[in-house]
Formats: sequence, structure tokens, C-alpha cells
Amino acid sequence: MLVSALVTSVGINSGLCILFFTLYSILRKQPSNYEVYIPRLLAEGSSKRRSGFNLERLIPSPGWVSRAWKLSEEDLLLSTGLDAVVFMRIITFSLKVFLFAGIIGIFVILPVNCTGTALHEIDFADLSNNSLDVFTISNVKSGSKRLWVHFSAVYLVTGFVCYLLYYEYKYISSKRMAYFYSSKPQPHQFTILVRSIPVLAGSSVSESVESFFKEYHPTTYLSHMVIHRTSNLQSLINEAKKLYGRVIHSQSDPNQEKYKRVGFFGQKVDLVDHYEKQLEDIEENLRLEQSEVSWAGEEIRAAFVSFKSQYGAAIAFHMQQSTNPTHWVTEQAPEPHDVYWPFFSSSFLRRWISKLVIIVACTILTILFLIPVLLVQGLTNLSQLEVWFPFLKSILTITFVSQVVTGYLPSLILQLFLKIVPPIMVFLSSIQGCISHSDIEKSACNKVLWFTIWNIFFATVFSGSVLYQLNIFLDPKNIPAKLAVSVPAQASFFIAYVVTSGWTSASSELFRIIPLICSLIRKPFAKSTDDDLEVPSIRYHNDIPRILLFGLLGITYFFLAPLILPFLLIYLCLAYIIYRNQFINVYAAKYETAGKFWPIVHNSMIFSLLLMHAIAVGIFTSKKLSLASTLIFPLPVVTLLFNEYCRKRFLPNFIAYSAEVLIKKDKEDQNDATMAEFYDALATAYQDPALLPIHYSANADSLNSPLISSSEI
Amino acid sequence: MLVSALVTSVGINSGLCILFFTLYSILRKQPSNYEVYIPRLLAEGSSKRRSGFNLERLIPSPGWVSRAWKLSEEDLLLSTGLDAVVFMRIITFSLKVFLFAGIIGIFVILPVNCTGTALHEIDFADLSNNSLDVFTISNVKSGSKRLWVHFSAVYLVTGFVCYLLYYEYKYISSKRMAYFYSSKPQPHQFTILVRSIPVLAGSSVSESVESFFKEYHPTTYLSHMVIHRTSNLQSLINEAKKLYGRVIHSQSDPNQEKYKRVGFFGQKVDLVDHYEKQLEDIEENLRLEQSEVSWAGEEIRAAFVSFKSQYGAAIAFHMQQSTNPTHWVTEQAPEPHDVYWPFFSSSFLRRWISKLVIIVACTILTILFLIPVLLVQGLTNLSQLEVWFPFLKSILTITFVSQVVTGYLPSLILQLFLKIVPPIMVFLSSIQGCISHSDIEKSACNKVLWFTIWNIFFATVFSGSVLYQLNIFLDPKNIPAKLAVSVPAQASFFIAYVVTSGWTSASSELFRIIPLICSLIRKPFAKSTDDDLEVPSIRYHNDIPRILLFGLLGITYFFLAPLILPFLLIYLCLAYIIYRNQFINVYAAKYETAGKFWPIVHNSMIFSLLLMHAIAVGIFTSKKLSLASTLIFPLPVVTLLFNEYCRKRFLPNFIAYSAEVLIKKDKEDQNDATMAEFYDALATAYQDPALLPIHYSANADSLNSPLISSSEI
Repeated sequence: MLVSALVTSVGINSGLCILFFTLYSILRKQPSNYEVYIPRLLAEGSSKRRSGFNLERLIPSPGWVSRAWKLSEEDLLLSTGLDAVVFMRIITFSLKVFLFAGIIGIFVILPVNCTGTALHEIDFADLSNNSLDVFTISNVKSGSKRLWVHFSAVYLVTGFVCYLLYYEYKYISSKRMAYFYSSKPQPHQFTILVRSIPVLAGSSVSESVESFFKEYHPTTYLSHMVIHRTSNLQSLINEAKKLYGRVIHSQSDPNQEKYKRVGFFGQKVDLVDHYEKQLEDIEENLRLEQSEVSWAGEEIRAAFVSFKSQYGAAIAFHMQQSTNPTHWVTEQAPEPHDVYWPFFSSSFLRRWISKLVIIVACTILTILFLIPVLLVQGLTNLSQLEVWFPFLKSILTITFVSQVVTGYLPSLILQLFLKIVPPIMVFLSSIQGCISHSDIEKSACNKVLWFTIWNIFFATVFSGSVLYQLNIFLDPKNIPAKLAVSVPAQASFFIAYVVTSGWTSASSELFRIIPLICSLIRKPFAKSTDDDLEVPSIRYHNDIPRILLFGLLGITYFFLAPLILPFLLIYLCLAYIIYRNQFINVYAAKYETAGKFWPIVHNSMIFSLLLMHAIAVGIFTSKKLSLASTLIFPLPVVTLLFNEYCRKRFLPNFIAYSAEVLIKKDKEDQNDATMAEFYDALATAYQDPALLPIHYSANADSLNSPLISSSEI
Repeated sequence: MLVSALVTSVGINSGLCILFFTLYSILRKQPSNYEVYIPRLLAEGSSKRRSGFNLERLIPSPGWVSRAWKLSEEDLLLSTGLDAVVFMRIITFSLKVFLFAGIIGIFVILPVNCTGTALHEIDFADLSNNSLDVFTISNVKSGSKRLWVHFSAVYLVTGFVCYLLYYEYKYISSKRMAYFYSSKPQPHQFTILVRSIPVLAGSSVSESVESFFKEYHPTTYLSHMVIHRTSNLQSLINEAKKLYGRVIHSQSDPNQEKYKRVGFFGQKVDLVDHYEKQLEDIEENLRLEQSEVSWAGEEIRAAFVSFKSQYGAAIAFHMQQSTNPTHWVTEQAPEPHDVYWPFFSSSFLRRWISKLVIIVACTILTILFLIPVLLVQGLTNLSQLEVWFPFLKSILTITFVSQVVTGYLPSLILQLFLKIVPPIMVFLSSIQGCISHSDIEKSACNKVLWFTIWNIFFATVFSGSVLYQLNIFLDPKNIPAKLAVSVPAQASFFIAYVVTSGWTSASSELFRIIPLICSLIRKPFAKSTDDDLEVPSIRYHNDIPRILLFGLLGITYFFLAPLILPFLLIYLCLAYIIYRNQFINVYAAKYETAGKFWPIVHNSMIFSLLLMHAIAVGIFTSKKLSLASTLIFPLPVVTLLFNEYCRKRFLPNFIAYSAEVLIKKDKEDQNDATMAEFYDALATAYQDPALLPIHYSANADSLNSPLISSSEI
């Protein structure tokens, strides 16, 4: 790639960025788009729809940028929770790393590379006609003493990244503690989930749970809630929801036909009445079913067990309960609204096998993903298209069209395929046995991360067949040598990738293009109110892996091709503004993991460092500076030791709270006057929502009778 | 190797076996050898030294064999404890496996191999002149359908071994529970060891412990015992012991000079008086030092903390205590007499680093061990010896001598080097941070096991340089192919190895040759009493790895060269009798891990199975039966899954007891009338023996005053 090509690409993408920012600055001010751009403020009632036209609405104003930039961490913590703070710290962490690496890279390594002569001397007279490779390590001669500069840079940046990682882990760890101390008593802190409950013949699951915990946790046990199989209730509820939608639709739409012919003689019946009648029937049905399920429905051998203190719950969670470790399996309960109800398979063996199957499926999907993509991409070659669609022949002969088809279509197809991966991973995580939305999100985040690293980084670097790639990893000795050959060669590709995929995607995120289109389509038909507005929650499994991929690129390329760093820095600044904004206005926190995403970030950064060391070993060997490649070896060892230390020092606090913390918190809570109230709420906090009464039909209130009550309390 | 050679070897070694058995049968009856052969019975007082001569003493009687054979598991459990039972079950487990594999091997696979024609047809007329290779899989032609017999055998034996492993794990697990339920309350069940205790300025470790546990475990905390640095006390005690030995020696030996000239004028002084005086001085010194250490000595930031219930102790062990997971690190306490006092390094980081260093040291020792051995062996070549020791020239020309020097000396040197490995591993484990003798033993057992597998199995199979071996393991794809070539080729070596190293070593173990020699040397000088008799404890780290190595050989070779199995079976029968006997008469249990050695056995068997599968894949590929090698693949996967299941199902019970078990036991204990007494004993159970009063000098009793008392109670 020539410098001129890069400059062109940067120009186009900067233009797009500015266009998107400007458009967003205008669009966000149109009241008709409020539910797309500030759904959160609407839902919270802190912003009202303003009607009436004024000129200001058409002039782009950058006020939101400075608002987003100035938002303090405390404000973010208060408004969106600790997860959002941790998410933003991923970006600021990357910013710090790349500022440090950037200064070394641009002011020290870049000049060394440029003045190398391995490829050809840089042509300052006609700068734009230089190949980008001139700026990479490939331009430094083999055996050159200048490579020690790169060597020192690797040591320096490793040290800096490790220092920052330690500092961040410690900071987030302390934030997590502070968050816990300052929070009100929460049901999930007092509750554990117990699975694989053994049931004696003749007794119910509920009786087993009660007798077990009264026997072994007599002083701390409070109550429990056995989980029922509610899949048929779920379908009834869905049906009721659909009918309710139709009723609303028929009532509000003046153009809709109001009557329908029914029966043998075709009497005219008012449609609204007709639906209302059906809805009442279903709700009646549902109430009967609900009471049946509650009293005599199929119990699953799993229950939420609540305790009088958080320490009591923690003891039950930490200790193996039964002599048979596969019975009475305990885990921490998620927040009540975070529970993922549809999947509650009970037996230990079944869950274990399903987990293994999903892991294998994910691995296979990750490894073999490129095969269908390459097949589909293969269809886009010109001659093939001409054979299939002869009528396109004349169009395809135009140079521009053929360039688009051959140059952009394949990458577009790859991007489209990549778009469907996060939902697939979420689906796989949801049937893997995760019991909460946050767990699903976390597990999917990990899956998407490794998928992205494999399918973008390694697939590009080792641009061969899947089997060839696998072969490389089955031959671990030669990985550094192969990386040393392939990684620098792809530098210009990744620089362009950061600019196109990074800048443009980030700024186009502002638009929320799909919600915008949906809202435009829906608007003519439905009158929506602020009450049923759905506030989206940020999809961490989608956004964290992307930032971490750029982190990997930055760390591995900073000493190979430091030119990538300024582009990454610009990307991170964009992301910083945009995410702080898409938090103020758009996204709300649906659950709070209190920073449990951080260990994923930490691990990924450690992996990036190790990859950088492997590449460095390979580079210095291939550049015939074997002393340097030997002297790199302590670095991965120390990095791994550092990682191990962090695992011991910080990770336990991200899994569970310590006895000290829990007992202190319990003591504080005891002085809280609202605890009696809280205990009452706790007893029903983990009621399956499918068993809760619903109020859709007009006279539902009168029917909302005490038929429904929990059988366990 | 020819059949005749094997027959010769078997003949010689059987002869040696019978000789050893006969000699033992006579020697054991000589009263002068009682302390070598029945120290345990003597110490227990269940056998008295009989003097007086009778003819029966000179006639070998095999009564002990049947006594050892008939000993029931219950008797063994009662007399020596669960560890001995588990140890014997390793042998019976192997017996069962090799009986099953032996039947398949000898009656199905052996005929198939013999009637193969790949090498040459078997010569029934002159059986002893056939090569042993005729009996191995090498004799089956490539692509032959007969290989499916071997294929089925691999499946069958894997299934059988897994079934037995499951059964044994379950059985030992239940025995462990039964042992726990039936045991009296024991100090280590009520106690945890706390390390990395943070101390506030101005307060002592003891105060910190007290305030922390009174704060966070107010209802269950009982007492604690801070550990002091006692290395200087230890040296005083050793000095006192040495002097005491001299006093006893001087008193008992009539030939010893009784007087010594001391002082400037050379007064004659009674030697015994002289030593007694010195001893008294040292004891006085020691008492002063002890009281100083107890009251104001250097406290180590570690303490044994005892609780009122076993459940209380378990909670404190399972929960992370402090917000900083590297402070207040808890672990289960060992039995009081099992504590390894010398090594109590305190800081988390230091212990962690020392552990890493030891692991690296062990790995390097294991990998590079053969280098010095090969160097020393290289010195035994004839021409080198003749150059160094010219006077040996005439002797070395005798054929027999030269055969011994070239044929036996190298393997003798290897054996001698191998003998020093277990003590080295014990030493490394002891400075690794293990806090109990049993932990050291367990950790050393693991180290010796992998050392043995690497340095005997792999070093023989890949008989090349260390670097060559390492290269093989860095290239994992080709391991099966390389194994397939090398493993069958070494069949006859390993058959001979089982006969020589197995049979002869096992039966020579009966002799306890080194204790016998020691006792013979010591006897003329010292009059020993039954009181100071030292009853040895079995060195599991030495014996378990040997049996497991033979297990590995049996499992990997049963379908390659089934001829190995009968020899293994004979070895196991010998071992069965001998160990049951070296338990009845010789060894006593110094500590009880309640079967914690079993997981090592389980893991090693799983490894053997996987190795067998890898070899099978390689063999079927090289024999051009690729379908069979593909169909083997599910086997290692299922084996690994089985292992994972066992880890989840049984392993937790080998690490700690469950809440259910502990609470039941606590309730039973509460009804025990002796509990108040037990609590009193518990408070001082973990007193460092270096701080206990000693009674060597004649008038020590009068001085054994209340100067000594624990400061912590």
C-alpha cells in the first residue's frame, strides 16, 4: 500500500466521520427521533418531547460533545452503574497505553524505521509515493544495531502495560468494594441458587429443600422458592401479549376495518370486542394454569434459597453441601430481574454435557467460520456473476462497478457474516446453562473476543486455509518464526482496517441506524407512548471485543509499524465521546455485575503482550540478532508470573466477597430499620415472572384474585 | 532378545527370589534381627525377644506368607490405618486389571501375534531360539484384518480400567467418609493454619489473630497458637541429644576409657560426670532460651487457630477471610505430630516464588538427569578404564569381568543414581513450603512418579539425547507416529526389566538390607532397648511410583507384547505378600491422610490409558489400517471426559469434607462427654516441640519447672 492510498482512505473516512457527527447533531434534535436518540432520558422523564418548530433544530450544535467529554466518573457511576464505569475505563486504559507507546513509536521507532535501508530509502521529495512498508521494521537491515531500539521499546511498553494493568485491577477492585459497601441490601446478596436437589420418594422438591436447610443452616436459613417448568405458561403469555397488541392497534388506527364477519351466518362483530373477548379467555386460562403450576406443577430440582444474612448465603455458597458433590450444587444467585428463566435444566450430568457440547460447538464455529464466508465470497468473482446473471454483463464492464464488486463486496460479505456472530454466541451461551442475562453476556463476550482475534487477526496474518492455520498452532516451536514473517507484512492492511472499521463504524454507531429505520417504519402505524418505550442496554459482548481487538493490534504493532498508533488514538477518542454520549442518552443498565468484565480485559491484554513477545522473538531471530531474541525470553516469563500474581491478588474479589466484607456489611444492615420490610420482599423476589398476574384485558383487575400465590412461602 | 535369554533371566531371578524368601524365613526368626524385621511388633510390645537356641530357628517356615495373604482389610485398617489400605488397593487394583488384560492378552492377542508372518514364522521345533519380537505386534503384517483384534482389546481394556477406576474411587471415597465418622475428635479437624497475618504497628501477631477471629468468628473461635522462629532452639536440642548419646555410650560401654584429663594441670575427671555436667548446662540454657522465645521471641506471621466445631474451622478455611486475598491465607491444619516445623516462611509472595522455583528446579532435574548419568557411565568403557588404571589391564582382559564391567556397571550406576532421586525430591518438597510430613510425602510422590516415567519409560523408548526427546514433545502431532516406532521395539527390554527390577527388588526389599547392615554394625557398640526403637514408616513416595510405573508398562504393552503380563502378575503377587508382611511387622503409620494418595494413582492410570491410545493410533497408522486409527479417537476423548467427571464427583471429597458430614459429626461430638477435656488438649496441641521441656540429664525432673508455658493460651 502506498502512502497516497492511505491518505485517500483517511480522507474519505474522516469525511464520513464528520458527516455522521454533523447529521447526528441535527437528527438528535428532531422530536420525532427522540425515542431513538434519547430513549433513556425520555423513559426517566428527564426530557420531554418538545413540539413546535424552530430554526435551532436545523443547525448542528456540538454541545453534546463537550457534555459527553466532561461527564465525571462519579456521575457515570450514579447514573449507569459500575459496569459502565469499567467499560469507559477500558477505553481510557487503552488511551493511556497508546499515548505512551505512541510517543515512543512516533518519535523514536518511526525515524529508525524510515532511515533504514533494507527495502529502499525513503523518498522525501515525493512522500506520497512511498510504500507504507518503509515505515515498518521491515525497512531495518538484518543484524543492524538499531534493532536494539525496538528491543528496548518492547521492554519499556511491557513494563508500562503491566504497571497500568496492576493499577487498574487494584482501582476497579477497590471501586467494587466501595460499591458493595454503599449499596442497599439486595436480594441476590442474600440468596443462592441450589441445583441437583436429591428428592426422596414421596416428598416434593420444596420439602427436601426446607428440611435440608433447616437441618444444616438452622440459624441463617430464611425462605426458598422452587423453580417450576413454565414453558407452556410462557406461550400463553406470549399469545396474550400478541392479542393485546392487536387490541391497541384496532383501537388506535382509524383506517382499520372495525368489524369482522364471524360464525356460520356471517354476523358482523366489533373487532375490538372480539379481541377483548379472546384476551379475557386467554387470561382466564392463564390464571388457572398459573395456579395449577404453583400448586401442583412440575417442579424442577432447583431452587433459590434465601438467608437472613449475606454471610450466611456466602457460607452455603462456598461450602460443598452434600457428601456427593454433584448434589446440592450451589452457586451465587443473580439479581432477580437478571435471571434467565427459560433454561433451567436440572441434572448435574446434563448441564455438564451441554456445557461441553457448547464449548466444542463454539470452537468449531470459530475455527471453521471462514469456510462458508470464503465460499460465498467466491461467488462474487466477475466471470461467475456474468455466467449467472447475463443481464448484468453490461453494467459489470464499467470499471467503477467492477472495482466495487471485486474490491468491496467480499469485505462487505465478511462484515455481514461477522454481524451475525454475536447473536449466535449469545444464543450458544444461553443454552450453555448460564442462569442470568449478565452471565450470558459475559460468556458471549469471551466467545466473541476469541472469535474476533482468530478470524480477523490470525486469519489475516496467516492468510491460508484453515488447516494451514491449525497446522501452525500444532507446531508451537515455529510460531514465532511464522509470526515474524506474516505479521509485519500485514501492517498496512491493519492500519487501513483501523481507519475504515474503527473510525467509520464508531461514528456510524451514533446513528443507531437499525433502530432509526425501525422507528421510521413503525411510526405511521402505531402510537407509542413513553411508558412502553424500550430503553436498550449496551451490548458488552459486542463492544468490548472490538475495543480489545484494537488493543491487540496496537500492542503487537507498536514496534513493528508505529504508524498505526495515531489512528488508534483517534479511534479511541471517538469511542470515548460516543460511548459517554450513547450512556447519557441511550443506554440504561439492566443489571449490575459490579465490574466482573474486567478480568476478561486483563486476560486479553496479557495475551496481547505474550503475542508481542512471540513476534519479537521471531523478528529478532529472522533479523539475525539472536542475542536480542534470547534476551526477550525473560519477558513472557515475567509477564506470566505477573498475571499469576494478579490472579491471586485480585481475581478472588471478582468472584465473591470476603468474610470480612460480608460480616461488616451484615452488621451495618442490622442497624437498618427497613430490614424487616426487605426480608418480606426477599421471600417473593425470585418468583418466576410467568407466575405473576398479568393485566391486559379491560376487566382484568376484577379477576386478579388471590388464585395466585406462591406455594413456597 | 531371544526366548532362551529371557528364560535364563527368568531362571536366575526366580532363583534369587526363592533364595531371598528362604533367607528371610530364617533370618527373621533370629532374635538379634528382631529390631530389623519386626520393629513394629517389638515397639507395640506384642512380640518379646526370645533368647535361647532351638532348631526350629534354622528351618525356613512359610507361615508368614499365608499370614500376610490372609490379613483382612479390616485388620489392616485397624492396625495401620486407611493409607495402608489404600496402598494395598493399588496393588489389588493392578492385579485385577492385569488379570483381565492377561486373559485377553495371552489367549487372544498372543496367538494372533505368533501366527503373524511379518518378521518370520515362529519355529515351534526350537522354541527357545525364537526372537521375542515374534510375540509382539511387530509380527502382524501391515493392513492385516487381524489388527482389529488388537483394536477391540484396546476398547475392552479401556472400558474395564475406567470401570474399575470409578469403582475404586467410589469405594475409597466411602471408606474415607466412614473413617471420618468413626474417628474420635482430632485436633487437626478443629484447626486451621493462617498465614500472611497483617500486623498493625504496635501490636503483636498474637493480638492481631485474637482480635480478627474474635471479631469475625465470635461464636466458633476457641484459641490460637502463634508460630515462633525456633531454629536456634533446635540446634541446642540437637546438641543436647548428641551429648545424651555420649553419656549413654560411656555408661554402657565397659571398654571405654572412663576418665579424661582436663584443665591446665590435667586432673582426671570422670567422663560420665563430665558429660552430665555439660548436658545440664545445655538444658539450663535451653530452658532459658525457650522461655525467652515463648515470651518475647520472634513471632512468625503464621498461627494455628482452633475452633469449637469442625464446621466452624471448615467455614474459616473455605471462605476468603480478608479483602486482600493475600492476607489471612487459610489452609487445613495437619495433624499436630505431622507438622513440619523447620519451614515456616511467612510472606505470601516469598512462599509463592519459592514454590515456582522448586517446580522449575524439579522439571530441570527431571529432564536433564540423564546427562550426568550418561557421563559417568561413559567412564566405564574398557579402554578408558585401562588408560586410567593400567594395573587393571590384566583383570579386564578376562571375559567375565569385562562382561560385568560393560554389561552391568552402567545399569548399576543408573540404579544408584535413581536411588538418590527420592531423597532429593523429598528435600525439594520440604523447602517448597509444604507444612506437613504427609504433604511432603505426597508432593514427593508426584515428583518421583513423573521423574520415573520420564527417565525410565521415555528415556528408554526415545533412546536419544535429551534435546531429541524434548523435540519430540514440542512437536505434538508426530508423537503417536514416533511412539509407534519406538515402543514395540523396546518390548523385550521392558519384559526383562520387570523380571530383574521387579521380582528381585521386591523380594530383596524383604531383607531391608541397609537397616540390617546398620544394626549389625551398631550392635557391638550400643545396647539398645525396645523403648528407643525407631519404627520406620513406609516411604510412599518411593513405593507408589514404582508400582505405578509397572502399571503404565502393563497398560501400554498389553496389546503390543502381552508376554509382559504374566511377569507383571507374578511381581504384583510378590509385592502383595511382601507389603502386607513389611505392614504387619515393620512399618507403622506416622500420620494419616485418609486416602489422599488415591487421586495420584487415578491420574497416573488415566495418563497410561491416554498413552496407550496414542500408541494405538500410531501403530494402526503405521500398519496401514487408517480406519482403526480414526476409530480410536473417541476413546481418549471419552477417557478425558470420564476423568473430568471423576474430578467433579469424587475429588472434592479428597480435599475437604462437606457441610453435611461436618455438621453431623459435630452433633455427635457434642454428646461426647470427653469434649471438655479435648478442648483443653486442643489449646496446646500445636505447641512447637522445640518449646517443650526435655528430660535428658539425671536431675532434669527437678528443673522441669513452670518456666515453660505457652504465652498464647
